[in-house]
Amino acid sequence: MPVVGMAGGGQLARMTQQAAIALGVQLRVLAKTAEDSAARVVADARLGDDASLEDLLAFAKGCDVVTFDHEHVPGPHIEAVTAAGVPCRPGAPALAHAQDKLVMRNRLSGFGAPCPRYAPVPAADPIPFLQDFAEGRVVLKATRGGYDGKGVWVVDPRDPAARALLEELAGLELMVEEFVPFRRELAALVARSPHGQGAAYPIVETVQEDGICVEVLAPAPDLPDDVRAEAQRLALEIADELGVTGLLAVELFDTDQGLLVNELAMRPHNSGHWTIEGARTSQFEQHLRAVLDLPLGATEPAAPVTVMANVLGGDDPDLYSRYLHVMAHDPAVKVHFYGKDVRPGRKIGHVTALGDDLAEVRARARHAADYLRWGPAMKDHAMKEKA
Amino acid sequence: MPVVGMAGGGQLARMTQQAAIALGVQLRVLAKTAEDSAARVVADARLGDDASLEDLLAFAKGCDVVTFDHEHVPGPHIEAVTAAGVPCRPGAPALAHAQDKLVMRNRLSGFGAPCPRYAPVPAADPIPFLQDFAEGRVVLKATRGGYDGKGVWVVDPRDPAARALLEELAGLELMVEEFVPFRRELAALVARSPHGQGAAYPIVETVQEDGICVEVLAPAPDLPDDVRAEAQRLALEIADELGVTGLLAVELFDTDQGLLVNELAMRPHNSGHWTIEGARTSQFEQHLRAVLDLPLGATEPAAPVTVMANVLGGDDPDLYSRYLHVMAHDPAVKVHFYGKDVRPGRKIGHVTALGDDLAEVRARARHAADYLRWGPAMKDHAMKEKA
Repeated sequence: MPVVGMAGGGQLARMTQQAAIALGVQLRVLAKTAEDSAARVVADARLGDDASLEDLLAFAKGCDVVTFDHEHVPGPHIEAVTAAGVPCRPGAPALAHAQDKLVMRNRLSGFGAPCPRYAPVPAADPIPFLQDFAEGRVVLKATRGGYDGKGVWVVDPRDPAARALLEELAGLELMVEEFVPFRRELAALVARSPHGQGAAYPIVETVQEDGICVEVLAPAPDLPDDVRAEAQRLALEIADELGVTGLLAVELFDTDQGLLVNELAMRPHNSGHWTIEGARTSQFEQHLRAVLDLPLGATEPAAPVTVMANVLGGDDPDLYSRYLHVMAHDPAVKVHFYGKDVRPGRKIGHVTALGDDLAEVRARARHAADYLRWGPAMKDHAMKEKA
Repeated sequence: MPVVGMAGGGQLARMTQQAAIALGVQLRVLAKTAEDSAARVVADARLGDDASLEDLLAFAKGCDVVTFDHEHVPGPHIEAVTAAGVPCRPGAPALAHAQDKLVMRNRLSGFGAPCPRYAPVPAADPIPFLQDFAEGRVVLKATRGGYDGKGVWVVDPRDPAARALLEELAGLELMVEEFVPFRRELAALVARSPHGQGAAYPIVETVQEDGICVEVLAPAPDLPDDVRAEAQRLALEIADELGVTGLLAVELFDTDQGLLVNELAMRPHNSGHWTIEGARTSQFEQHLRAVLDLPLGATEPAAPVTVMANVLGGDDPDLYSRYLHVMAHDPAVKVHFYGKDVRPGRKIGHVTALGDDLAEVRARARHAADYLRWGPAMKDHAMKEKA
């Protein structure tokens, strides 16, 4: 049975282990510490830093293929592993588009994929440039290293605060994008294998708060068939054009003028956690099948409606005591915890509910996620928030 | 988060790890070797022999609860772990009924659970005793240590072969049961928690060949509602009477005279593997919830029909190369491999198919299991068997 190496010890590697156990393939992870989310549950966890070429090469030795649970492994490191004879999936040329937002925008625009209007921001005297770029607010992005709303700022270049922010960000490579008045955000998750097979999951709606995904509704409610088909086609086209192997998540803005690509990720993605129970093949199994060049699994939904809600850390680290209420209240809700220490606002787990009626399923997922975050104080918190 | 210790390193512990990862509880297994099915995938695998009290006590230290993936841990060892302050679930008094078939029959008969007629076999001069017991064939069972058809013999005490067999078995404690002309075999899977909550899964039909379960049909087709309800009630009653904590699988004969209890198991059971995809809560998650005294999960089926087929070892150890065909042929079939070396007839994995039509779903599961066993030679084998 093959050995799949996954660089990174986060929850994506952790949940990939569940799929690897079923397939009988050995998952090896490269984690920074033994307390990392995946290192806690994977027998073959190696400790090291995937930003170190030496650590990465030692890790890759004996793997049949190497893949990633994040985008931060430097491209030249990935090329070196490939040169050492271990295929990396996705490869460095594809992954570059998930590592650098400007590279991604240039490439996507090159073959006509719809994107917000964008431009690189000059390092010298950026304010007049930004004022020329658009009338009102614009979206500033660090080209590299952002996640979960970090590395993204919405500013009005005419506002004095913009000058202060840009001084703070001096030295960071920035790009600017038009502020898109979207109706909602969607995500298209597809897989592509080295021999070119593709598979698309149902299009989902992602609900964000403060730049963090809090809910995923699968399938996206009230999505016209032609938009759904276009989103799937677009994601498969991007995977093909970029030569992605493994999963590709395409975050989309649903606007009055049609779909626009927001971000790309080439790995299992938060917007696909619902597939563990909600689709015939989980995204984690699909990623393993794709990077191993095995035939891809069926993406059909397992229920009419699936809702995934992220559990964010609250003030109280004692999650386990809340299982009693959550499981007794709703014996059918599925709880996933990542073995991470609780910090306020940190993604520490998720819950999934399935059923026939969106409002009911969404309320069930929401209740469980909120209760796990706030515990018995949930009501007080909700009242405070309203006040 | 609590630490659950599971004595035994087989596929049941391996699949329990998938559920433990989601719940965020730490699974610790006690395995004989690092190559054991579960030791290959569990980060906290301890090596040792659960028949050794010293190993078992060292293993249990630091666990919040200890449970088992088999029935062979001696009762006094379990009592010693309990006395050392670590609760064992199920406890020794309950587990005794899954360890000794005569103890089980006596206890079940004591509260009126329907069993085949049975008797202990005297060590001295057993043949006349057996000839008096029944007219034709009888079922001889070793009271302890049997599994998968091992430890069970169907003999006619008037046949000279019976005398030879009994000489061979001298020294083994035996019991005899009437040969039951059953229509089919059913299994009732229930969970019971320390505070007494119970949950019953749908009743399934198990299909055996040579004493080994080869298929499970969930739910059991064409089962009258009253028989289904009676099977669930009976299993819950047995769990309650015996004080089981965790899962209880009750193997049943479906006869013209009603249901009869065949065997008991107090752990995740082969007849419940279908629940991983086929029920809202897998039996492995349910077992963890039960031994942790967490509220039990919903047992509703996730599809109208689920069929699980065991994959037995064939002549060729190279299973992985067959994934290509099986996954391409049926992208929706779910493959589970146990990381075990292939030996002819050994259970090395299982496959699960879900759908609406029993004949179609069963054919899909059967095809995948047979192909994984025999590979491209399947057709030849099938032809040979027919010839």
